[in-house]
Amino acid sequence: MVFSHKIRVRYAECDRMGFVHHSIYALYFEEARTEFLRNKSITYKELEDSGVIMPVREMGFKFLYAGKYDDLLTIEVTIPETPTLRCKFEYKTYNQDGLLLNEGFTELFFVKKETMKPIRIQPELFNKFLS
Amino acid sequence: MVFSHKIRVRYAECDRMGFVHHSIYALYFEEARTEFLRNKSITYKELEDSGVIMPVREMGFKFLYAGKYDDLLTIEVTIPETPTLRCKFEYKTYNQDGLLLNEGFTELFFVKKETMKPIRIQPELFNKFLS
Amino acid sequence: MVFSHKIRVRYAECDRMGFVHHSIYALYFEEARTEFLRNKSITYKELEDSGVIMPVREMGFKFLYAGKYDDLLTIEVTIPETPTLRCKFEYKTYNQDGLLLNEGFTELFFVKKETMKPIRIQPELFNKFLS
Amino acid sequence: MVFSHKIRVRYAECDRMGFVHHSIYALYFEEARTEFLRNKSITYKELEDSGVIMPVREMGFKFLYAGKYDDLLTIEVTIPETPTLRCKFEYKTYNQDGLLLNEGFTELFFVKKETMKPIRIQPELFNKFLS
Repeated sequence: MVFSHKIRVRYAECDRMGFVHHSIYALYFEEARTEFLRNKSITYKELEDSGVIMPVREMGFKFLYAGKYDDLLTIEVTIPETPTLRCKFEYKTYNQDGLLLNEGFTELFFVKKETMKPIRIQPELFNKFLS
Repeated sequence: MVFSHKIRVRYAECDRMGFVHHSIYALYFEEARTEFLRNKSITYKELEDSGVIMPVREMGFKFLYAGKYDDLLTIEVTIPETPTLRCKFEYKTYNQDGLLLNEGFTELFFVKKETMKPIRIQPELFNKFLS
Repeated sequence: MVFSHKIRVRYAECDRMGFVHHSIYALYFEEARTEFLRNKSITYKELEDSGVIMPVREMGFKFLYAGKYDDLLTIEVTIPETPTLRCKFEYKTYNQDGLLLNEGFTELFFVKKETMKPIRIQPELFNKFLS
Repeated sequence: MVFSHKIRVRYAECDRMGFVHHSIYALYFEEARTEFLRNKSITYKELEDSGVIMPVREMGFKFLYAGKYDDLLTIEVTIPETPTLRCKFEYKTYNQDGLLLNEGFTELFFVKKETMKPIRIQPELFNKFLS
């Protein structure tokens, strides 16, 4: 399943080349991931309030073309593998002309906030992920 | 007493006009304020860990000239009034040529983290502020 | 005329108090201002591409309550005075419960990019502003 | 050759877990890379003003431990291969206790600003890189 989320590029997110700064895509991917989860009835805020946090353990980005100010970007999110101890998300960013600007991934762990130890995904959450 | 703190402008902090984005000065002022306090033997992190937080209640900025990428800025910090329930900081930003780029202020409250209620500055802290 | 724009608070925009960092509202206000202008058929990107930039000369913020992660904020934008050499925007931020979190203003100048000199608002633009 | 650069974690750079947000390391690595180049008498600002820009084409991060507010981080920068059409930088982030928090890389291209086409590194620049 591919989930799509639209983000309008903010002025402050562009650098003096006029391009979306490369660091900003980590924010866009996080926003897209959150909406992907909300679409599966998982509110990341509630998850965190329940004592489970999902820190990013690894991430990577390949940039093909630059995003620009005021672009209306589409971020496509997928989960390529069944989540267990960790959960991988893959992303593709397109601009309003359908041009693929970049792709990336983030790998997150499920961590119990209290102990800061990794845990397996909870069955209830797991079922929502697969929905 | 005037405290001075130097900050090098980062690439990502400049917008497509090539100027330091106006939102960034709130970060610079916060960094300068933290170093001002450290200079008075007050570590803001320790203060917060002890249960007292200092949220910003009001802030203002007047921009005269734009900061630019790679500028080595000097932020001057002063406390214009004796802090009681609240603490006001004033700032002036100069570039490496001594040009005044902007000035601003932030007014913070002392708040007990547990109750989220404003409190008076603790006497111990007060003495450090006046040092 | 009051223009309303909704913004969902991003994870990275909250600090370790769990609150939207005060610097972030300058980004929210900028986004709201851009959409306000778009609603009047003024695309700030096109304006800038035509050689007119609008740097912020002054801004101020009063914070009453903190925004929180995942809040769906409403930013209300108004122009309190007819723009001439400068243009003032006023903002109010409400959370999803209708609670007023803060208010602020930004005052911008119309500047010719080529000469970096302030100019009067162009009549064509002026008419759109008043629409 | 390993180049070391120190960065103090800002308040606004930490999220509501109390950790440096993962997106921020792209900013830290950029700052460290700029100081690495300055140490080799290459001012990135001058390079860009001369018409050569260096956009990031690929980057990756592995996070082991979280950075925290007020940490005094050390970023180690190396160039693992001789730069030609592209230039790879590798980074390691340590906290003040010498704990390795994360590692990452960025791969940048040399691009002529006017044509936006990739170019080979200029011989003069190349010699400075090898110095």
